[in-house]
Amino acid sequence: MPNSFDAYIISTGVALPGDPLDNEVLARKFGASVQWIEMFVGTRQRYLAMDLDSGRVTHSLADLGAEAGAQAIARAGLRPTEIDFVVLSTSMPDTLMPATVNMIVEQLGIDRLPTYQVQSGCAGAIQGLDLTRRLLDDEHRVGLVIGADACAKHVVLDRDVTELQPTELVNYVLFGDGAGAAVVTSEKVPDSIALRSVLNRCCGLGRAPGQIVRWFGAADRYSEQQPVEEDYKAIEEHVPILALEAMYEALDSMAWNSGSVSYLLPPQLSGRMTERIVEKLGLPGVTEISCVADTGNNGNAMPFLQLDLLRKQLRTGERAVAIAIESSKWIKGAVTLEGV
Amino acid sequence: MPNSFDAYIISTGVALPGDPLDNEVLARKFGASVQWIEMFVGTRQRYLAMDLDSGRVTHSLADLGAEAGAQAIARAGLRPTEIDFVVLSTSMPDTLMPATVNMIVEQLGIDRLPTYQVQSGCAGAIQGLDLTRRLLDDEHRVGLVIGADACAKHVVLDRDVTELQPTELVNYVLFGDGAGAAVVTSEKVPDSIALRSVLNRCCGLGRAPGQIVRWFGAADRYSEQQPVEEDYKAIEEHVPILALEAMYEALDSMAWNSGSVSYLLPPQLSGRMTERIVEKLGLPGVTEISCVADTGNNGNAMPFLQLDLLRKQLRTGERAVAIAIESSKWIKGAVTLEGV
Repeated sequence: MPNSFDAYIISTGVALPGDPLDNEVLARKFGASVQWIEMFVGTRQRYLAMDLDSGRVTHSLADLGAEAGAQAIARAGLRPTEIDFVVLSTSMPDTLMPATVNMIVEQLGIDRLPTYQVQSGCAGAIQGLDLTRRLLDDEHRVGLVIGADACAKHVVLDRDVTELQPTELVNYVLFGDGAGAAVVTSEKVPDSIALRSVLNRCCGLGRAPGQIVRWFGAADRYSEQQPVEEDYKAIEEHVPILALEAMYEALDSMAWNSGSVSYLLPPQLSGRMTERIVEKLGLPGVTEISCVADTGNNGNAMPFLQLDLLRKQLRTGERAVAIAIESSKWIKGAVTLEGV
Repeated sequence: MPNSFDAYIISTGVALPGDPLDNEVLARKFGASVQWIEMFVGTRQRYLAMDLDSGRVTHSLADLGAEAGAQAIARAGLRPTEIDFVVLSTSMPDTLMPATVNMIVEQLGIDRLPTYQVQSGCAGAIQGLDLTRRLLDDEHRVGLVIGADACAKHVVLDRDVTELQPTELVNYVLFGDGAGAAVVTSEKVPDSIALRSVLNRCCGLGRAPGQIVRWFGAADRYSEQQPVEEDYKAIEEHVPILALEAMYEALDSMAWNSGSVSYLLPPQLSGRMTERIVEKLGLPGVTEISCVADTGNNGNAMPFLQLDLLRKQLRTGERAVAIAIESSKWIKGAVTLEGV
């Protein structure tokens, strides 16, 4: 089998929970300044699957994934029973077992089909798209792929959040919750997006993780271990370089020159980081498709949110490249896309 | 692409931590009787990645996965750098991020390759084998697939474990830790095991999960929620039926009749359950390949441990079928295999 082969994204779906929360709301809640959030993070608003006052969870990850999936299925003109398999990527499953993907198919009202759940961070959507195109075969012609994240389990509200250090505070303003989805087929369909190639490459040998997110079980839930650790300096240093490498490796694999690309879907760590990365990539005349400033960084959902925006603009024969960089143990992800 | 196509398992590897713990040790520690364990669970011994006296974790999941992976690579006569991609399936990752598969490749001393981690329970090894054969292409000719589980985070020792109820006690004697691995190629190699077809089917619509394993984050770690819930009655009722269905669907997909199968690798929930399932499957003259009574139920590792035993016996042209049933949200898994 060749490494480059086509699959077709025929529809997309998006689920963002509740009303958007702007920087005024977060600044009041966490004792930050609106100016600091705008300057440091560059995100204007985000959505959360919880109520910030009570801490009550309003949407499970399964809820978000099922909503985005149902929208993508409806937009494809299909019924859920016409889906042949489902792939979910996430860093924050509702439970370890069952895998959340199996609670999503329950909500979609379907079963008797293969399901797969990928544990990943920012590169998860790329991995999900890769596995989806490879799962298409004579028997499985229509796949649903979902990327979703929801951070409520890690958002501690019952402490004095108004005295957070900047390195902790950033986690309260950087992230958002949400899900995105796409229906992918092996058959070439008019007005679809051809998925031409996928790059998924772990490249962290000998380099410490830039991000660690722990989970606790029955035995270690009362331990003093830090749940989340980030090395923002390493992230700021390495991510733009890895994004540049990923872009050129993806273009090279297709023998596309950078001038032939009309749309760039850059990594969506934060509004501010995305600006810097786009500048570093330096693609002349390209149209940037970003959404992090309006949604917050919702991890595995982000590339699907960008694909949803791309679908409204991409014309036949136009090319796009989407890039996702995971700073946990350093993964380069990219897909090349073309309007059909 | 056809749904049935071949990949070849050219080697296997196994990692079981420390010395085996027999029923005498567990009976003393948890106030159970050896007779009860033997009668109800039917497991003679198991391995744990922790010290039962101190609770100290002796092996991370990454340690176990890397050890099994390194053994499979060495037995294939390869160096780690000759591996083109790695797939890990587990229900108990060391952390949510990085995905444990990326810490395994770190231990193997390799990078610049695609990695994927599947979140799953007992059906995970089947899903990992499925994805591995589909990831083989012109560029990626040799894949390493690992199944691993380690339950230390959920084994609470700092309580009066000598007064556990039977429904709780069973979790302390049923499970074990471990990892198994296989090197899989697209090229037909003498003395390998051909992976002929894979069945992976979620079939739980409208049926409550038989097993729930939760994780806790920074926000809910002090909640009173039950970490593990099991409905053993539902598991005992449904698993044998699903195993029977999975076996016949797998055989049907290959147009194999049951009399042509020489080896059966049945689900490995417990020594006792496996006995009942084998009886239910009723394959005449078949050789059973089981190991749960000597290893405990180590989840995602089990089918690889069985494959490791099968490799020593399977001759050219002989057929085998391996079955795994996941009771979390009810998944039927099976693979058909043939000696090359």
